[in-house]
Amino acid sequence: MSYFSENRDRILDELFEWLRIPTISALPEYRSDMLQGADWIAGHLDHIGLENVQILATSSEDSPPIVYADWLNAGADAPTVLMYGHYDVQPPDPLEQWETAPFDPTIRDGKIFARGANDNKGQHFILLKAIESILKQNEQLPNIKFFLEGEEEIGGVHLATFIKNNTELLGADICVISDTPMLSPTQPSIITGLRGLVYMQIDVTVTDTDMHSGHYGGNVHNPAQVLAWIVSKLKDESGVVLVPGFYDDVKEWSLEERSKINEVDMTPEEIQENTGAKVLFGESDYSPIERFGIRPTLDVNGIWGGFSGVGAKTVIPATAGAKVSMRMVAHQNPEKIEQAFRAYVESLIPDGVEVTITTLSKDKAIIIDPTSDYFQHAVDALTDVFGVEPKYVMEGGSIPVGGHIKEDLGIDTIYMGFGLVDDQLHAPNEKFNIEMIDKGIESARTLLQKLAS
Amino acid sequence: MSYFSENRDRILDELFEWLRIPTISALPEYRSDMLQGADWIAGHLDHIGLENVQILATSSEDSPPIVYADWLNAGADAPTVLMYGHYDVQPPDPLEQWETAPFDPTIRDGKIFARGANDNKGQHFILLKAIESILKQNEQLPNIKFFLEGEEEIGGVHLATFIKNNTELLGADICVISDTPMLSPTQPSIITGLRGLVYMQIDVTVTDTDMHSGHYGGNVHNPAQVLAWIVSKLKDESGVVLVPGFYDDVKEWSLEERSKINEVDMTPEEIQENTGAKVLFGESDYSPIERFGIRPTLDVNGIWGGFSGVGAKTVIPATAGAKVSMRMVAHQNPEKIEQAFRAYVESLIPDGVEVTITTLSKDKAIIIDPTSDYFQHAVDALTDVFGVEPKYVMEGGSIPVGGHIKEDLGIDTIYMGFGLVDDQLHAPNEKFNIEMIDKGIESARTLLQKLAS
Repeated sequence: MSYFSENRDRILDELFEWLRIPTISALPEYRSDMLQGADWIAGHLDHIGLENVQILATSSEDSPPIVYADWLNAGADAPTVLMYGHYDVQPPDPLEQWETAPFDPTIRDGKIFARGANDNKGQHFILLKAIESILKQNEQLPNIKFFLEGEEEIGGVHLATFIKNNTELLGADICVISDTPMLSPTQPSIITGLRGLVYMQIDVTVTDTDMHSGHYGGNVHNPAQVLAWIVSKLKDESGVVLVPGFYDDVKEWSLEERSKINEVDMTPEEIQENTGAKVLFGESDYSPIERFGIRPTLDVNGIWGGFSGVGAKTVIPATAGAKVSMRMVAHQNPEKIEQAFRAYVESLIPDGVEVTITTLSKDKAIIIDPTSDYFQHAVDALTDVFGVEPKYVMEGGSIPVGGHIKEDLGIDTIYMGFGLVDDQLHAPNEKFNIEMIDKGIESARTLLQKLAS
Repeated sequence: MSYFSENRDRILDELFEWLRIPTISALPEYRSDMLQGADWIAGHLDHIGLENVQILATSSEDSPPIVYADWLNAGADAPTVLMYGHYDVQPPDPLEQWETAPFDPTIRDGKIFARGANDNKGQHFILLKAIESILKQNEQLPNIKFFLEGEEEIGGVHLATFIKNNTELLGADICVISDTPMLSPTQPSIITGLRGLVYMQIDVTVTDTDMHSGHYGGNVHNPAQVLAWIVSKLKDESGVVLVPGFYDDVKEWSLEERSKINEVDMTPEEIQENTGAKVLFGESDYSPIERFGIRPTLDVNGIWGGFSGVGAKTVIPATAGAKVSMRMVAHQNPEKIEQAFRAYVESLIPDGVEVTITTLSKDKAIIIDPTSDYFQHAVDALTDVFGVEPKYVMEGGSIPVGGHIKEDLGIDTIYMGFGLVDDQLHAPNEKFNIEMIDKGIESARTLLQKLAS
């Protein structure tokens, strides 16, 4: 019987308690919930048997703290495993599309529905329960360092500096992160690459206040119109990003490599079923799985300006804005892309219109060596638990922390996550399959024991 | 001494009471305030001496009612003057830009600041106080029919049917409406034309729920991007509307007529000062006053989709939308423009994307004959009070009711309004100059006495 099966009710109670704290980092009004979240998870790290629990300020005292704990009793010969999670979650809007309240976790059909059920509370809970199970059962554990940040969903603004300033505290031999999806409950997968992210905001201002469209329509620029002109030129209607130089450094893959990547199925039908999209849309020279894993892209994450209520308001808005992010792939330089984006948008600004371009985050893609011993331990652990060898996947999402860990701590990361692609991350009705929690704890237990031996 | 000067405190108290009722027709949560507003103004019509006060349902029982009253004691030989106002106001957002609360009227520097201070509570209050002054002082009044609607700011959806169904109740010889601006407190003006309005909404849907941009970016359409493509093609970057056939029926004015129109100054500096815009932008073949009065235009009144909060949310929105309105000029047919807009937007929809196009209102432009006796009475009244002849102005805003009154009641309308162009209609810090209320009451008094004699 699995550790989860033996402790199901208690583990779910604990996870639900964790999910009920609305740790929304993007919205200032949830500041006290963020602090409560840091306290709760610190308490839980202690509760499962980790030691030296600390709540540490980042370089900005106003930002959510880092929570740290360790267990360093495996001896100097045993490896040290760094583990990372984030305790902040995405805002739940649009609220009206949730079938049950986002911070009132509910089980339906074997799945937990809640904001953060997967991303990342459910996922890092798997790692915590794996550690707990080994400590409780006096099995073999490597040295462990566990840390969580509270700003992942807002670009992890202070994490890079924190890692840079705490290389001794965080020093380890290998890092393990659960924050990625698997192909299916019966077909495990493991990540061999992650896209990076450059996230920008464009604010267009024409006038001091909103104007009456009857009085001024035809005589002044309309910021929402200007914004539409700019955004329309970021991507062409065949799905190609138009920022000059955007594709310059993108790694070209050999036909053999591409054929290996295409071994993982990502069918149009599957994407359509998961999203409700009627057609797929993207660069026509690449397959869906290639567009997901090895091609960069650009998306509008938000657009706003003027009146969006019911009915008609004849206003010319004073300002309009958009959030635009670009997913980076191997060999692209985020600094270079940020500069290219800025220069291009600046070239599109009409005379007399004020446009502010803000960088919200920039992180490069990550490529993992699948031949390392650590990686192979993870492959073996998944094979043991699932009874099938995991497939290798280039992941479309981004986990910037891995880049900083590589750069500042000099170690690789194993991305062994237990989500599913239909988990509705960042969307209404986010969920996490209980079966994946069960298999996840077993897999993480097995990996830790392999690393310890 | 003017009637206003003699009764200043009382009149301002009454107007402030009126302005404190937040009669926002666009927002369903203000439904009870709308009903309270209808009650208040009905009571006030009675209070000033009008008779036969009625609160009348429109064809939709859920919509704000029409308020009606009359005074028909001038005799069968005297003309009957229909007067119109609207008791609903625009939503006050963005709230944070108001210097004082929108529904707490405040006097600063001789001006009343409040939502509705001008549009239209302050303006129709002038007509009511003019009637009151004549009745109180037993002066000569023509027959009066006064009615107010509560849906002007949401496109007057039920007013056309109401007028069509109540031609006997509303039957009159001439209509007078105060809902337009003047050039300045020392240079009166009177309206010889008004633009019409076709107001549309575009809703773009790609998926059932929001998506994670890492998982689906590059493989599905982004509705905010699709919306930007569509909106970018509505108007070109020189200010020309691109809807095919948009300019086909636009009245061409002779050089002589254009030279008369250009006698009214509308300098770039003035527009820049009133709005804060750094440059003017519009069709380069026309002057600002022509672009305001005799040229049609198109504006985005609102645009929305995805995440607009602080920070970064890596979401692909499920839907995005925009409100787009077009100002019509003489000879343009709103039905034809609406159809042209629909056909054009439909032609821009990418395969597999769902776009809904909704018509929120459509009303044609109004052209007034400045040689009529009624119009000349208004010109004389303004000349008497201001000591200067009024200039004739083609107004850029829209007052759809005049079209229905012409069509169904067969009478013309005198648009004699007392706002100023910097009154911030539909914007934060809407205001109305007290001096204009004073001169307005005197002018309306004088016009009514001229019409009665």
